Amino acid sequence: MARIALDAMGGDHAPQAPIAAALLAAAELGPDHTLQLVGQEPVIRDELAKQLAGASPLLQAAAERFEIVHAPDVILMTDKPSVAIRGKPQASMGVGLRLQAEGKSDAFISAGNTGAQMAASVFILRLHDGLERPAIGTVFPTAKQPVVVLDSGANVDCSPKELENFAQLGHVYAKDILGREKPAIGLLSIGEESEKGNAAVKEAHQLLAKNGLNFLGNIEGRDIPMGVCDRGPIDVVVCDGFTGNVLLKFYEAVAPMLFGMLMKAGVTKEQLGAVVHSLDYAKYGGAPLLGVKGVSIICHGKSSPEALKNGILAGLRAHESKMSSHIAERVHA
Amino acid sequence: MARIALDAMGGDHAPQAPIAAALLAAAELGPDHTLQLVGQEPVIRDELAKQLAGASPLLQAAAERFEIVHAPDVILMTDKPSVAIRGKPQASMGVGLRLQAEGKSDAFISAGNTGAQMAASVFILRLHDGLERPAIGTVFPTAKQPVVVLDSGANVDCSPKELENFAQLGHVYAKDILGREKPAIGLLSIGEESEKGNAAVKEAHQLLAKNGLNFLGNIEGRDIPMGVCDRGPIDVVVCDGFTGNVLLKFYEAVAPMLFGMLMKAGVTKEQLGAVVHSLDYAKYGGAPLLGVKGVSIICHGKSSPEALKNGILAGLRAHESKMSSHIAERVHA
Repeated sequence: MARIALDAMGGDHAPQAPIAAALLAAAELGPDHTLQLVGQEPVIRDELAKQLAGASPLLQAAAERFEIVHAPDVILMTDKPSVAIRGKPQASMGVGLRLQAEGKSDAFISAGNTGAQMAASVFILRLHDGLERPAIGTVFPTAKQPVVVLDSGANVDCSPKELENFAQLGHVYAKDILGREKPAIGLLSIGEESEKGNAAVKEAHQLLAKNGLNFLGNIEGRDIPMGVCDRGPIDVVVCDGFTGNVLLKFYEAVAPMLFGMLMKAGVTKEQLGAVVHSLDYAKYGGAPLLGVKGVSIICHGKSSPEALKNGILAGLRAHESKMSSHIAERVHA
Repeated sequence: MARIALDAMGGDHAPQAPIAAALLAAAELGPDHTLQLVGQEPVIRDELAKQLAGASPLLQAAAERFEIVHAPDVILMTDKPSVAIRGKPQASMGVGLRLQAEGKSDAFISAGNTGAQMAASVFILRLHDGLERPAIGTVFPTAKQPVVVLDSGANVDCSPKELENFAQLGHVYAKDILGREKPAIGLLSIGEESEKGNAAVKEAHQLLAKNGLNFLGNIEGRDIPMGVCDRGPIDVVVCDGFTGNVLLKFYEAVAPMLFGMLMKAGVTKEQLGAVVHSLDYAKYGGAPLLGVKGVSIICHGKSSPEALKNGILAGLRAHESKMSSHIAERVHA
């Protein structure tokens, strides 16, 4: 039995989307797990009542089992990261993460202010020994299996040692969450040869070549959409958070752009359907903040109820697989 | 009248593709310009004879006007960059670029070893005062107008000053080659705010804010496929060569991957036709090495005759627009 805390106030469509996501998750998970809705209690109760009007008795019963955890403050998308710690410690981020630090919750999921969530997660949950910063692991859909790209935005200037740590974090994520037996790790660079890349990447290559992971060597931008390089399928892409974030946002925009052009050229929505679906980020349910002692899942601010529900499922999977303990073992090693 | 030197030995499909490109260009340009085919003379004459068998009298006449410049050595795609300068100075790269340095040619176009072409171009043509390294400017097709992204691979670790120089180079390219009146420059980062980005980008933002260019501020990966950010259309994207190269290779691979998925889902080749064409890199004819005193156009190793012909046209445009002198004025300023 897991207890999953959901930020009811976070994201562009809060509180509607988180509440709807909680109802979807409750229907899917059944009574074995507890959902904790964290936020302003009156707002949550109002929205719940609205969404439950006319709902099935099953859903009514599921909602009965929700735990509502009051958090008086609200963090805005425009607030600075530090607000979550110093300015508004009684907002849903601080309250939800403290539940976990105090052993009263197993995972925290939010579509709110990402910077604030990172800061609060590191401050409240703390990092595993051996890590200086957390990393965001984002799943990229590819023509074959999805790959996890990290860091995708938590760290902009990365040392070789940090890049090596990302490989360890990615290894655990790919194993525990994506179910890859022996995750294959690629180091993103601008040429296959070990001497290609910027200074940090070249040194990281040397570290990765001898740290016992299944290291494919350098991969290039062209290998990611296919999910494969000429040495085999890729499970984990290691890069600094600047490159990863640029790539992630580029990828999120390029498919809609192409689909728009295709529709103008007469391709129908129905024809695009299957492909659009297989590339849909909502399926992957948010990106875990890897390296913290616990589970903190970062969802896109624009997340739909479906995407947030998948974030809840990702949080559950991270908890059940003991991902955080596995990371502790890895970065200690 | 311009004299354009074409590397007849460079690229995966040499000498067939360069010779075919020269014939296409000759037919399009007419007798006003001279094409200089640089490479092993017997190989060039053989290939020309083969391709001219049965050709129209017009094409036969055009080929008569080719200047064949003998270069005994051949640089392989696997050779190290230094080979162009020290190991094989009598290869087509060295010979073709020296023609230009000696005032006997106006532009050099190659689909050969990119590292060797960069090294030889800087060594033989030299850089304009005020520059420490050249930059590769690559045109990215977008949903709106194409944008030039630089650097896309010549420099991996870039200082803020270099990023500022890329903006100057991109300004001239967008004006002279893409015909943009007042090129709008975006600095690629991971957030719109000036304090977002890695150390070099944050400092470059400050430099760009006061150097008199039409600076849009930071842009994000998501703005590139649309060719527009919320402050307006983008003409130039400034980034370090690591990020630019990763993005370029990712972009080159993501469209074919999506098209492949769509065809599996039943979309026909005909339906994809117009969009595939509008994203075709061959149209943009190679990437100029910006910052050298002269014109050196880098084409993809896989370039088709059509792509190489467009490389020749790009070289001509760079020469006629006096791009190199305009760059000298900019980086002196």
